[in-house]
Amino acid sequence: MLEQLKERVCKANKLLPRNNLSLFSWGSVSGIDREQGLMVIKPAGASFEKLVPKSMSVVDMSGKLVEGSPPSVDTLIHLELYRSFPTIGGVTHTHSKWATIMSQIGLDIPVYGAVHAEYFYGDIPCTKPLTNDQIHKDYARETGLAVVRALYEKKLTPERVGACLVASHGPFTWGATELVAVQNAIVLEEVSMSAWHTMQMPIKIGKIPQTMLDEHFFTRNSKQQPSGQIPNVV
Amino acid sequence: MLEQLKERVCKANKLLPRNNLSLFSWGSVSGIDREQGLMVIKPAGASFEKLVPKSMSVVDMSGKLVEGSPPSVDTLIHLELYRSFPTIGGVTHTHSKWATIMSQIGLDIPVYGAVHAEYFYGDIPCTKPLTNDQIHKDYARETGLAVVRALYEKKLTPERVGACLVASHGPFTWGATELVAVQNAIVLEEVSMSAWHTMQMPIKIGKIPQTMLDEHFFTRNSKQQPSGQIPNVV
Amino acid sequence: MLEQLKERVCKANKLLPRNNLSLFSWGSVSGIDREQGLMVIKPAGASFEKLVPKSMSVVDMSGKLVEGSPPSVDTLIHLELYRSFPTIGGVTHTHSKWATIMSQIGLDIPVYGAVHAEYFYGDIPCTKPLTNDQIHKDYARETGLAVVRALYEKKLTPERVGACLVASHGPFTWGATELVAVQNAIVLEEVSMSAWHTMQMPIKIGKIPQTMLDEHFFTRNSKQQPSGQIPNVV
Amino acid sequence: MLEQLKERVCKANKLLPRNNLSLFSWGSVSGIDREQGLMVIKPAGASFEKLVPKSMSVVDMSGKLVEGSPPSVDTLIHLELYRSFPTIGGVTHTHSKWATIMSQIGLDIPVYGAVHAEYFYGDIPCTKPLTNDQIHKDYARETGLAVVRALYEKKLTPERVGACLVASHGPFTWGATELVAVQNAIVLEEVSMSAWHTMQMPIKIGKIPQTMLDEHFFTRNSKQQPSGQIPNVV
Repeated sequence: MLEQLKERVCKANKLLPRNNLSLFSWGSVSGIDREQGLMVIKPAGASFEKLVPKSMSVVDMSGKLVEGSPPSVDTLIHLELYRSFPTIGGVTHTHSKWATIMSQIGLDIPVYGAVHAEYFYGDIPCTKPLTNDQIHKDYARETGLAVVRALYEKKLTPERVGACLVASHGPFTWGATELVAVQNAIVLEEVSMSAWHTMQMPIKIGKIPQTMLDEHFFTRNSKQQPSGQIPNVV
Repeated sequence: MLEQLKERVCKANKLLPRNNLSLFSWGSVSGIDREQGLMVIKPAGASFEKLVPKSMSVVDMSGKLVEGSPPSVDTLIHLELYRSFPTIGGVTHTHSKWATIMSQIGLDIPVYGAVHAEYFYGDIPCTKPLTNDQIHKDYARETGLAVVRALYEKKLTPERVGACLVASHGPFTWGATELVAVQNAIVLEEVSMSAWHTMQMPIKIGKIPQTMLDEHFFTRNSKQQPSGQIPNVV
Repeated sequence: MLEQLKERVCKANKLLPRNNLSLFSWGSVSGIDREQGLMVIKPAGASFEKLVPKSMSVVDMSGKLVEGSPPSVDTLIHLELYRSFPTIGGVTHTHSKWATIMSQIGLDIPVYGAVHAEYFYGDIPCTKPLTNDQIHKDYARETGLAVVRALYEKKLTPERVGACLVASHGPFTWGATELVAVQNAIVLEEVSMSAWHTMQMPIKIGKIPQTMLDEHFFTRNSKQQPSGQIPNVV
Repeated sequence: MLEQLKERVCKANKLLPRNNLSLFSWGSVSGIDREQGLMVIKPAGASFEKLVPKSMSVVDMSGKLVEGSPPSVDTLIHLELYRSFPTIGGVTHTHSKWATIMSQIGLDIPVYGAVHAEYFYGDIPCTKPLTNDQIHKDYARETGLAVVRALYEKKLTPERVGACLVASHGPFTWGATELVAVQNAIVLEEVSMSAWHTMQMPIKIGKIPQTMLDEHFFTRNSKQQPSGQIPNVV
């Protein structure tokens, strides 16, 4: 079942180590079939190198395994994002170096430049640290909800800001397809590295003005459906 | 038409990802035929890997497409530089990591060392941030004019300082040929990385004296036509 | 003798340069046969590339050569760790870039994030600087004892924290097998890089709470025998 | 003439780009035949890739070309070091990233750790900035003399500290052979990166004690002839 989606999600997962976003088997990419209500995701602890389409995990929206090996430990986080962001088709989680550093610092990534502005319409939010209660109760689900809350509290739309840092943890990105999600993870890593070094300098211009953000974002993305962008990941 | 120029500009574009100056399809190199008043540039959104000479865009000095696919979104910026700097033959724009960081910080790059001094005769300027009016009016053209203004306000000649940072955006470099422009982009990246780390240390020597700048620059470059240097890009 | 152990330790040593943990012939991995009381370790000054199983050094618990070439200069440090940590089966020493920087700074690595928490149950300790007396007396042995002391003074169990920084020197890691030891060296390098950059930012969240440390560590490791984890080093 | 020396120096030059110490044609390695009073060095502006033994430049001790293409612009600096340090057999100059950053900062590199201590017996000195008079008079020769002065003013012996930073310029390294000189350039780069990051942290242990410096340096190097060390450069 879902052969095409499995193939695409498998391929998208392999982009993580190829783009230096992943060590060992860390990280996961998923894709969703909204009609059937099924998500395809990397199996738990699977090595990227050995991944083949038929080994992918298929789960329903409650996280129950429908086909394949047991799914990634991040499954419930992915599902929470699909549930709350009804227009997205793919989700990526990594522990990439620079986005993880920014997550550990726990600050939003200010929109300092043109690359950021072309891919993300505004600051990239960082969640609040989870409380002990949230960690105890349902860690994965609460992590997903923290991402959703971070976006909505800052009045960001998931179609225009396809990334969020989870405090003390690492980045989640998403998009219209699993390839856009991976592309956002690659750009987020670049933007995080750039922002960290910009922040270290005491004197700086600061964030770009709204006019420049509009100019760059809407040159690259349609005003109607920004998340419909064609990814330029190889 | 312009077969030789197309071949050279195509080749020069491929040097960007090979020298780690470019992710995805970011960045563009152009070359100019001054006699015919035509510029050859990378097509909009084209992947570096698939670039072939015949796919290059040819535009006239107003930016009108004369041959090939629609040109890079940076076309009007390139043209502005050719118009204002009559001796240059090639222009490069990238979002390379360290030069972008310095652009976001918004400071000129001080001439701290020998490598900088051999390729750039003095500090590498950073433009002022564009005003909202400039961004609204004609963003690309105003970006080019900001570069031109940054050079002339600091009394730099484009033949001797083949690079400028655009505030909150990234670097533009140029030279007698498209290969010199790419070479300057590579050296600028090295110099930016070096300058950022030098600036972080509270105690330091500071800029080199004028005598040392002269010594290094004029050993590598002729006093008559510094931009006529033979590039050492492979 | 010990053919299988030699083969495994040889292979584990070769992972050091492959994972960018080692320049030249720096660093060493060892494994132990507890029943026979023999340790297999990289020979002194041997190049990783030319290493073959039969060239490995076999020593007894006093460091006396039993078979093969003269053992690594770090031999007595490895032996001290095996003696004091009776459940471990492999030890790794490197001068990897970021773990060495943290060793030279001389601070414990705070548990700032999820990756750290999955592999190390708490801060990674740094030893106190050795005294002149300790250096004079028996440098290698005292280095091993400093590691043991750092763990026990901070009430850490070697099964749950498989890494220690030796002040002004570099990292030692260990685990149930030589592969777990190497894996811990790779993760330690990632965690060190991440922690250094987190520490540079004046405002930050700080360490993760105990609940999150438990959540991540015990998802990846059994509560009964955490060092029995299967390494995911290729 | 000097066929063997040419072959060795040619090979040693090719190690610079292979070890990421060199961009384009930057940098040079030389070797000396003390009996004949001739130095073999990389030709001016030559690409490392195309270098072959017979293309190497042979000069006498005054810098006069004896055979081959015009020698590196650094020739007089190399010669000054051979003249003042009678026991050395090879010299290397690079603009490697981290050693150049430290040169631009203009501080000695403190001996913070074990790797530094195994290869360099104490802090690695940085020259004073050259005066305008020195730059005007005879820039290359004065650069060489600044290195010699930096060593002797700090009472360092060239056999035990085979490296020096030239302020605002970059590193020079040397050793018993051209291979030891290259090895020292590789280690210096590692040590520079490590020292820069150690210096950024406000709280740190500081330099290692003399006992530890002795322990590491004299384990690796003979007390009689430390520069006679066998290089472990591949």
